[in-house]
Amino acid sequence: MVKQERAVRTRETLIRSAAEVFGREGFARASLTAISSLAGVSSGALHFHFESKAALADVVEAEALARLLAVTRTEPPAGASHVQLLVDITHRLAYELRSDVVLRTGFTLGSELSRPARTGLREHWRGWVEKELERAEAHGELRTEVAAQDVVTTVVAATVGLEGLGVRDAMWLSAATVSRLWRLLLPAVAPAALLADLQAGGTRPR
Amino acid sequence: MVKQERAVRTRETLIRSAAEVFGREGFARASLTAISSLAGVSSGALHFHFESKAALADVVEAEALARLLAVTRTEPPAGASHVQLLVDITHRLAYELRSDVVLRTGFTLGSELSRPARTGLREHWRGWVEKELERAEAHGELRTEVAAQDVVTTVVAATVGLEGLGVRDAMWLSAATVSRLWRLLLPAVAPAALLADLQAGGTRPR
Repeated sequence: MVKQERAVRTRETLIRSAAEVFGREGFARASLTAISSLAGVSSGALHFHFESKAALADVVEAEALARLLAVTRTEPPAGASHVQLLVDITHRLAYELRSDVVLRTGFTLGSELSRPARTGLREHWRGWVEKELERAEAHGELRTEVAAQDVVTTVVAATVGLEGLGVRDAMWLSAATVSRLWRLLLPAVAPAALLADLQAGGTRPR
Repeated sequence: MVKQERAVRTRETLIRSAAEVFGREGFARASLTAISSLAGVSSGALHFHFESKAALADVVEAEALARLLAVTRTEPPAGASHVQLLVDITHRLAYELRSDVVLRTGFTLGSELSRPARTGLREHWRGWVEKELERAEAHGELRTEVAAQDVVTTVVAATVGLEGLGVRDAMWLSAATVSRLWRLLLPAVAPAALLADLQAGGTRPR
C-alpha cells in the first residue's frame, strides 16, 4: 500500500516535471533526461511509468484536459446569468493558466506543430463557450441585435489569444487584462437591462 | 549577372521551402535535408546560403516581418477613418496569413518554445494596433465611454487568437470569421454617428 502510494506520487511528479520541461523547451526539444532529473527520479523509474516521450506528452495533455473540465464544470451561483458565468469562468481559466503549469502546457502541447493534430484543450474550450452562449441566448441574455455566433467567434478568438500571448508574458492572463476584455464586450453582448448586474471583473473571490 | 539572378532565386526558393517545412513540422523537428529537397537544391547549395537551421529560421522571420510591415503600411483611402483602416488591415492580414506561408510561419516561429523569445511579429502587430487606436481616439472615432486600452487588449487578443487557431483550421482566417468579429466589436468601439459608415466586412475588394 505504501509502495503503491509512492508510485502514484512519483507518477504525479513526473507529469508535473514533464509539463515544466515541455512548457520551457517545447515538445520536440524536451529530453526525457531533463524530465527525470527535474523530477528527481532515475530514468529507469521514468520508463517504468511512461514508455516514450510521446506517451508522456499525451498524459500531460489528458491531465490538463481533466483540469480544464474541472474549471468549466463549475456550477453557477444561484440566480447568476449564463453571461456572468462565462465571465467568471474566463477569469478562473486565466488564473489557472497563470498558476498551473500542467494546464498551461496542455494548451501549448495541443498547438505544437511537432505533434499530430487532435481534439485538444482549445477545441473543448470552444465547445463549452458555444454551449454556454446558446444557453444565454435561450434565456434572453443576449441583445436581440446580436448574432450568437458572432459572440462565440469573438470570445473564443480573444480568450485563445490571451492564452497564446500569456505563454511569453503572464500580464496577458492577469485579472486586469481579462476585465478589460469584458468591459468592452459586455455592453455589446448583453441587453441594457442586464448590464447593471454584470461584472466584468467577475463575481468569485479567489 | 545571370548567375547572380539565379542565386537570388535559389535563396528565395529556400526561404519559401523552409517556411513550409517549419510550418508543417515545427522548428525543432524540421530537417535541413527536407528543406533542400523541397527546394530542389543540394544541401551544399543550402549551406552556401544559410549557415544553420537557426539562421534560416531567423531569415524566414525577418522576411515575414517585412511582409507584415507591407500590410500595416497600407495607406488609408482618402477620407477613411482609422477604425475602418483597422478593420481593413485585419481582413488583409487574415487573407495574407491564409495565402502566404512565409508570413504564416513567421508568426508561429515567433511563438515556438524551442527558439529564444524575441521581438516578433505579434509584438509588431500589437504596436501597430495600439498606434492606430490612439489615432482613432485622437480623431474622436472611439466612443467616449470606452477606454482605448480596453479596445487595444481586445483587438490584439482576438486577432492573435484567430492567427493561432488558423494554423490548424484556415476557417478561422476567413473573411466571414473576421467580419463576425467586427460586427460585434464595431458598435462597442465607435460612436453611433460613425457606425453607418463602418463596414465590418472591410472596404477593399481583393
